[in-house]
Amino acid sequence: MSRQPYLRLTFKGQRPGQRPTASQLVEAIRDQVQGGSSLEGCRLPPVRVLAHQLGVAKGTIESVYDELKAQGVVESRDRQGLFVAPRNPEVEVPELTRVPPLALKRLSSCQPTVTARPGMLHLSAVFIDPRILPRDRLAACFRSVLKSPGMPGLYDTQGYRPLREWIAERLRGRGIDARADHVVITNGSQQALDIVMRMAATGTVATESPAYFIGKYLMELSGMQAVGLPVDPFQGLDLERWEALLRRHRPGLVYLTTNFQNPSGYSYSTRELSHICRWSREHGFGILEDDWGSDMLSYSEFRPSLRALGGENVLYMNSFTKKLLPSLRIGYLLGSEATISALVMGKRVATLGVPAVMEAGLYEFLDRGYYDTFLRTVQEELDRRYRRCLDLLDRLMPEPVRWTTPGGGPILWLELPRSVSIPRLAARLAAEQVLIEGSEDAFFDEPHLHGFRIGYAFLDPDEMEQALARLSEGIRALL
Amino acid sequence: MSRQPYLRLTFKGQRPGQRPTASQLVEAIRDQVQGGSSLEGCRLPPVRVLAHQLGVAKGTIESVYDELKAQGVVESRDRQGLFVAPRNPEVEVPELTRVPPLALKRLSSCQPTVTARPGMLHLSAVFIDPRILPRDRLAACFRSVLKSPGMPGLYDTQGYRPLREWIAERLRGRGIDARADHVVITNGSQQALDIVMRMAATGTVATESPAYFIGKYLMELSGMQAVGLPVDPFQGLDLERWEALLRRHRPGLVYLTTNFQNPSGYSYSTRELSHICRWSREHGFGILEDDWGSDMLSYSEFRPSLRALGGENVLYMNSFTKKLLPSLRIGYLLGSEATISALVMGKRVATLGVPAVMEAGLYEFLDRGYYDTFLRTVQEELDRRYRRCLDLLDRLMPEPVRWTTPGGGPILWLELPRSVSIPRLAARLAAEQVLIEGSEDAFFDEPHLHGFRIGYAFLDPDEMEQALARLSEGIRALL
Repeated sequence: MSRQPYLRLTFKGQRPGQRPTASQLVEAIRDQVQGGSSLEGCRLPPVRVLAHQLGVAKGTIESVYDELKAQGVVESRDRQGLFVAPRNPEVEVPELTRVPPLALKRLSSCQPTVTARPGMLHLSAVFIDPRILPRDRLAACFRSVLKSPGMPGLYDTQGYRPLREWIAERLRGRGIDARADHVVITNGSQQALDIVMRMAATGTVATESPAYFIGKYLMELSGMQAVGLPVDPFQGLDLERWEALLRRHRPGLVYLTTNFQNPSGYSYSTRELSHICRWSREHGFGILEDDWGSDMLSYSEFRPSLRALGGENVLYMNSFTKKLLPSLRIGYLLGSEATISALVMGKRVATLGVPAVMEAGLYEFLDRGYYDTFLRTVQEELDRRYRRCLDLLDRLMPEPVRWTTPGGGPILWLELPRSVSIPRLAARLAAEQVLIEGSEDAFFDEPHLHGFRIGYAFLDPDEMEQALARLSEGIRALL
Repeated sequence: MSRQPYLRLTFKGQRPGQRPTASQLVEAIRDQVQGGSSLEGCRLPPVRVLAHQLGVAKGTIESVYDELKAQGVVESRDRQGLFVAPRNPEVEVPELTRVPPLALKRLSSCQPTVTARPGMLHLSAVFIDPRILPRDRLAACFRSVLKSPGMPGLYDTQGYRPLREWIAERLRGRGIDARADHVVITNGSQQALDIVMRMAATGTVATESPAYFIGKYLMELSGMQAVGLPVDPFQGLDLERWEALLRRHRPGLVYLTTNFQNPSGYSYSTRELSHICRWSREHGFGILEDDWGSDMLSYSEFRPSLRALGGENVLYMNSFTKKLLPSLRIGYLLGSEATISALVMGKRVATLGVPAVMEAGLYEFLDRGYYDTFLRTVQEELDRRYRRCLDLLDRLMPEPVRWTTPGGGPILWLELPRSVSIPRLAARLAAEQVLIEGSEDAFFDEPHLHGFRIGYAFLDPDEMEQALARLSEGIRALL
């Protein structure tokens, strides 16, 4: 255990160029330590510390302490230093004041805790299998940056400029009129979402139901009213229903994940996206588009985004984290000349900036052309895993079970008969080392789906076969 | 320029195990592209893409496209692919719908933009001079981690456990009963502040006036009513005034920077801290203590903090960023058994996690014992710069100018006569390559101080002499 902390003493009204006299110091210390009973028993600063603080000789402080001892204000204890003397030595030194807790917000709903134990097969993961991610190449790029030019000292609040240039160029290749000046680098796409929620001057936001559940919590914690727009990954959008909801609730912001919406796995058709742009103009809401999934599907870079269709007022976000490595935590947000300063302010009040070496190391990886090489490899692998997953589902699932066929990418939706209890199924599977994530809390109203997502990007084909075989047995047992 | 984006098509109601027939596909595509005029002129997916999406042979898609061409639904353009045919060929393809902008919040006040041009002497910086920070040792530690064990794949939402253990042990050495389970690693201390503001179930927060201005913006953007508690770094706290303000406004949370409050440079005395604990109990507010400055002052690790005095309900935050390197962006928040899950949730909705390699690299630096070695060196250097700064102020400042003597550390407060206009002084100095940051916007009411902070940690003694000489001339010219 270390030495006991000592008092901080302040000496007021000191004039520059004047050092306090010993008698002024005696008076100032006596006033401070006798002013409140709670300081009894506290340790005084060592002589060298107080001399340093005041810029006076140690001899001055020694004489001050001698005088305070003589007056009975302080007392010395062997080898422990000088302490404030109790005024009444028979009273024990009082407990220091314990302060009350800060009242904290609570969430009205809470995702059932899914704890992945080591060795479990995670059948609902949205991540790509870390074993096929470019960890070594990333590490080599970071080491290279750290060797030369070395660890960056400062950071750019908006984000490392070469990285913003790279992103803007890539987006222009996808039909988006992007400029580096309008890109903000974020701590993953989660921060991009947080910045827009924080800066939006609206009390009502709409998003898909089932929703990305951490986004749903964010809306709730931000005190926003959230409207759920139902997505059925088998049927697409019910356009009349959506328009009625938008007209009735008049959200100021609509947040949509246009590729592989989590958890439904749905990707919007261009016709649906053009309806959304039209509604935006008719009903006056702003749009935030989350495009996390596009790079995970072969050829998807040539499909138009809401941003490409709707123009520069559509806020667009994406991330490198899901594709390259979860621990990178680097995403971005694309605004416009009119919105960029507010978006940068939203980042500034939240985190000031992203660690600069993360931006420089990632840029090195991108600049060497490793990203496209990697995407080609990983998309082929995900296509293989997708086809294998479909074959297994065809072979293993009992009759009433249905699933979507998104054509590749990371996730699909598996729909069960209502008679199968998903919490009971999850518990049974957990006992067999298979993890599924129920989505009950992801809906805003009564769930119109009864299932969960299957992440074929995360498990290799053998693991997938084991997991789906146990799932199939579980469903049959509960049917 | 890249190829034109193509339509996303969806195919509904597909049953597992059944591939759609060519005639079903013709019908589905015709329905989608003729449903809205805005799709006229859009490109269709290439044959290989659609075949891949649907899991059918390319020949099937080719015959579907031939049929659609024959029906006049689509038309082919040389070497560009297949496009949706306009229904009336004389009408031009319409512009895609431009969506309206999202309404964004605006700040009621805005810090005057201080733009540090290259070569400027920044006299008001709160940072330590990057030239004396351990950039090379940090880079070596990060390179070592990247070599072995390598780039971490996943991350711990609460923060890298060995780093949390190190922090908890260090805090225990300062009289704080800390456990690794109650520490959250944050993206700088800014995120620690944001988490608490986000999770606090209160509409009213109090903080020092003058305030840390980004914190003030954060409160405003969070829709909180902010109460200013006046700090006079020459006189300390006016205890009666504080108690009256706390009684009248009844904040749910009080946020205080107990060492080198920014911008006043004030450090609280133990007596003042014990009053704050008592008021917390009497008036029922929670406390967030920001201790960023303690490590920058020699011996200050032995002075008790609010957390040490007030117990586990005091939320405590600190950072490595200011001491080691601004671009690290690693800080932490210490809660308790009762609060930790809400604090972790507050981080989760904001950024999910901190880049794991940043935590591992910093831990390597700490674990090797470099932090204490570095602190000894840097504190000696800051003490030297502090004394040099005081000598220069004594020698150069005209009579009515006053300044505080905090005993070392990073910053002091310089107070000018009211007759000197600080904006005019700042403009004059900017023309002479010296930067000062006025603090007018940092007050909540009429400013009771008229000055700015001087950061002696940032400039070396020669630069400080040049900057203070120009400051002195500027003040004399405006007196």
